[in-house]
Amino acid sequence: MLQLYDKLITLPLFIGIGHEELSQIITHIKIGFHKIEAGKFICTENDKCEQLLIVINGSFSVTSYSNDHRYSVEEEVHTPLILQPSHFFGLTSYYTKTFKTITKCNLISLDKKEVLKLLEQSLIFRLNYLNLISIKAQQASKLPWGRKPENIEKAFVQFVRNHCISQSGHKVVRIKMIDLAYEIHESRLNISKMLNNLETQGKLSITRGIITIPSLEKLR
Amino acid sequence: MLQLYDKLITLPLFIGIGHEELSQIITHIKIGFHKIEAGKFICTENDKCEQLLIVINGSFSVTSYSNDHRYSVEEEVHTPLILQPSHFFGLTSYYTKTFKTITKCNLISLDKKEVLKLLEQSLIFRLNYLNLISIKAQQASKLPWGRKPENIEKAFVQFVRNHCISQSGHKVVRIKMIDLAYEIHESRLNISKMLNNLETQGKLSITRGIITIPSLEKLR
Repeated sequence: MLQLYDKLITLPLFIGIGHEELSQIITHIKIGFHKIEAGKFICTENDKCEQLLIVINGSFSVTSYSNDHRYSVEEEVHTPLILQPSHFFGLTSYYTKTFKTITKCNLISLDKKEVLKLLEQSLIFRLNYLNLISIKAQQASKLPWGRKPENIEKAFVQFVRNHCISQSGHKVVRIKMIDLAYEIHESRLNISKMLNNLETQGKLSITRGIITIPSLEKLR
Repeated sequence: MLQLYDKLITLPLFIGIGHEELSQIITHIKIGFHKIEAGKFICTENDKCEQLLIVINGSFSVTSYSNDHRYSVEEEVHTPLILQPSHFFGLTSYYTKTFKTITKCNLISLDKKEVLKLLEQSLIFRLNYLNLISIKAQQASKLPWGRKPENIEKAFVQFVRNHCISQSGHKVVRIKMIDLAYEIHESRLNISKMLNNLETQGKLSITRGIITIPSLEKLR
């Protein structure tokens, strides 16, 4: 119980909730506990989002797909992490990404009923939830208004950044050269030159259709 | 009071609230009423978002600016409309757009304290609010994943659509040809040809740095 308490207070949804209130929450709210072995799917794109899922430890990946599934971006993410809290409400709430464990992971789950109870009973949880999804909405709606990148390398970096949920760490972009050229609106030859140049600098590696970036923060 | 009731139930934040509960809300929640003359600012970009503002009738425009203020998009919007509800929470909550009356407008305002009261006391208001900003977050985060447009005309239409809060109606895009060319990643000459072609078709009109689109829904 103490361990769970320590994990919960690190989550943006529970941050600021006092010791006493949190103890009450742990006692009165039904929390599901799950262990998932390495290499298993936690949930996949288009799964219905009926429970709030929080990966509290272990290592896992998030894969996002383009609408036409021509390309994808895979990220290793840090725990604890709430899986797409802005997709838990809204008219058709389903996951738009695929989550897969890398190591063994521990998850907690909250049924919608329990989340609604928390939203009703805890002012801080309610504010945390509203802040969390408001920030997501604000960040996402900023995207179209930024200055377009001034060269092909910056255009590539922006392309990757705009498709990641975290702006640092290990990323794998699965995309055909011809599709990347189309997305960035450059010739395939220029794309190839730019990627080879970045590979020479040790900032990424390329194999057939797969671009591996060890640390996105080093690509600027 | 009856008139206010009729207006409130048409707002996404109050939809589904029963007659009795809504009467209680009107009685127990402090609602500010404001009349604003034609041609006045309601609030401007970077104003602190301390009240929830709802324009209940009249006609007004929303102007959004690029981060570097090189271009802007002005839209006429329909009332009733809540001004940026996803900017009422979050860490630094301020408006990112400028709202200006075209005709005389009637507004209602709710102080943060009153919104928090409503969120606490009304399950339906709480769900409506969460749904509203979740939908905003979901829609905005979809943007990077769509297929890029296949020609310059479609690229221009996508550019305008991605910068509008409503996908139909009258829009005024204030942008220099050279900046539009930069944003769409095309030559200035091609941009000019494309716009002239659309002007000939009667879908827009161009004067120095101003593109006026009478009905965005007719541009596809």
